[in-house]
Amino acid sequence: MAVTRIEELVTPALVVDLDAFDHNISTMAMALPGARLRPHVKAHKCTALARRQLEAGHRTFTCATIREVEGMAEAGLGEDLLLANEVVDASRLGRIDGRVTVAVDSKQTIEAAAKGGVKEVLIDVNVGLPRCGCAPENAGALADMARSKGLAVRGVMGYEGHAVGLDDRSLRQDITAQSMELLMQAHADVGGDVISAGGTGTYDINTWANEIQAGSYVLMDTAYAKLGLPFKQALSVLATVISTSASGFAVANCGLKALGMDHGKPDIDGGGNVMIVSDEHITFIPGEPVKVGDFIRIMPAHVDPTVAYHEHMHIVRDGEVLETWEVDLRGW
Amino acid sequence: MAVTRIEELVTPALVVDLDAFDHNISTMAMALPGARLRPHVKAHKCTALARRQLEAGHRTFTCATIREVEGMAEAGLGEDLLLANEVVDASRLGRIDGRVTVAVDSKQTIEAAAKGGVKEVLIDVNVGLPRCGCAPENAGALADMARSKGLAVRGVMGYEGHAVGLDDRSLRQDITAQSMELLMQAHADVGGDVISAGGTGTYDINTWANEIQAGSYVLMDTAYAKLGLPFKQALSVLATVISTSASGFAVANCGLKALGMDHGKPDIDGGGNVMIVSDEHITFIPGEPVKVGDFIRIMPAHVDPTVAYHEHMHIVRDGEVLETWEVDLRGW
Repeated sequence: MAVTRIEELVTPALVVDLDAFDHNISTMAMALPGARLRPHVKAHKCTALARRQLEAGHRTFTCATIREVEGMAEAGLGEDLLLANEVVDASRLGRIDGRVTVAVDSKQTIEAAAKGGVKEVLIDVNVGLPRCGCAPENAGALADMARSKGLAVRGVMGYEGHAVGLDDRSLRQDITAQSMELLMQAHADVGGDVISAGGTGTYDINTWANEIQAGSYVLMDTAYAKLGLPFKQALSVLATVISTSASGFAVANCGLKALGMDHGKPDIDGGGNVMIVSDEHITFIPGEPVKVGDFIRIMPAHVDPTVAYHEHMHIVRDGEVLETWEVDLRGW
Repeated sequence: MAVTRIEELVTPALVVDLDAFDHNISTMAMALPGARLRPHVKAHKCTALARRQLEAGHRTFTCATIREVEGMAEAGLGEDLLLANEVVDASRLGRIDGRVTVAVDSKQTIEAAAKGGVKEVLIDVNVGLPRCGCAPENAGALADMARSKGLAVRGVMGYEGHAVGLDDRSLRQDITAQSMELLMQAHADVGGDVISAGGTGTYDINTWANEIQAGSYVLMDTAYAKLGLPFKQALSVLATVISTSASGFAVANCGLKALGMDHGKPDIDGGGNVMIVSDEHITFIPGEPVKVGDFIRIMPAHVDPTVAYHEHMHIVRDGEVLETWEVDLRGW
């Protein structure tokens, strides 16, 4: 079969640098081997990629949506799936052929788990991020309630999402320590083997949790790149320059429908300044002169909502497309 | 067949209020009948929706991607499709069974059109937005070049994208007037019948163009809602409350993968303040008390990148799902 070069891809296209990807996988597997990492699939939404994580020794996974849990189980990756999120209708989860644990933080979500046929839960504890999770002091009572409904309570989870992105490592450590103190108190009341927390920004800081839910480490983005972590930028969006201006700016075909924008503008590989991003365009001042037809690589500020726009990711080395993986866990 | 209620939808889900939608379609068709409007499909990426625009009298359409042009033609809506964007490989366009016109703004894009087998072009003129388009004074020479390559030049296009979103109507008028002065000069040099420009924010201001490329009007978003236009908010994302906190905030299952965020945070129908949006969650202070299991409607700040995340949109009236349309023009 003829080799596909990246220049033959329809742009915009998600490309993954295989060397950086392999580096990230092995660096994390060394730091958090086996079940010490419960990779979060929400960052990549791709069972082919999850399989690489499994081959690196991680057999347990974290999901954010029911669709992700279903897709992982269908792909044969359902040995131990945690839906680290609350649901009010767990009936689809109960039908999954695989081990499914769901986060609960209220009477309603406990009842939903029991009614839906899910057998195992974690008590989700709010450790400071204004999102899901019960108050730490209520965790024990919720665990009792869950057990009274016939559910096995595997332990606790509590995501220090307000810490993971902090630039200052010592602040990140302090906030993580405060958060995990709350989680450990809740765990003492709840029992069970699992203390699940953490993310890419705290993977080597959070020594309280016995499993870390990192996901972004494998592809990375410019927000996490600022933290000085040992992970390389593996993901970029390949785009084609379609217009240039005598005023000095250029335009490429990668816009708001190819980039998650909540963390701000993306970066251009090789330098340059992004002026505006519109639906299907990025306008930028190139670092080096570009001409119509040139390819550029764009590094998104936030990996998760970027990947969710794309049907495929292309695995490349030295400009060759080695494999194309479907982003098969999109939707809900 | 049993009636589907919106409460039975898997959330998050795009829902379109049929009454608001019909109002928007008829209001626009009255203001800009038939070919005076060339609806932009990038706002909705849905051929079923485009068919409603056609039934309202608009038989010509604007597209932003090759995939949109292909999908429209495959759906039998290819009577007169304008790709209002530059491409450096037009071979897929040349194979389309339908009338395809492509925007060109350089020697390279003209050569790409000719080589790809496209027969008709518009000269894209930069009228002030830092994006594609040639300098107005170069439009005539590019038209000559295109004709020398055997291409029919239908006229000009020039998008006043720096005007369409301005809150102050008189400023919007002034910038539009300045932009269209440039476009009319270019048109004098280029010739042809088509002067294509405009958007939802200038649909009734831009009296220079003989066709307006509005798209957002049909679904609307909170950014355009601020302009006092006669179009109603038809689109929202239906979400389920999955957690509440004694601190007063609530969390619903609609996050960064269900909402375009470049225009800022969305609004909650019925009031409330959005605190944070994360990958699969929105944390908000409810206007009225909510409980786990309640449904809320979220109005996105920017319609186009919101719709592009969803597989379907559900057409609803009085809480009943009347139809479900595939968002079939996603991808590239």
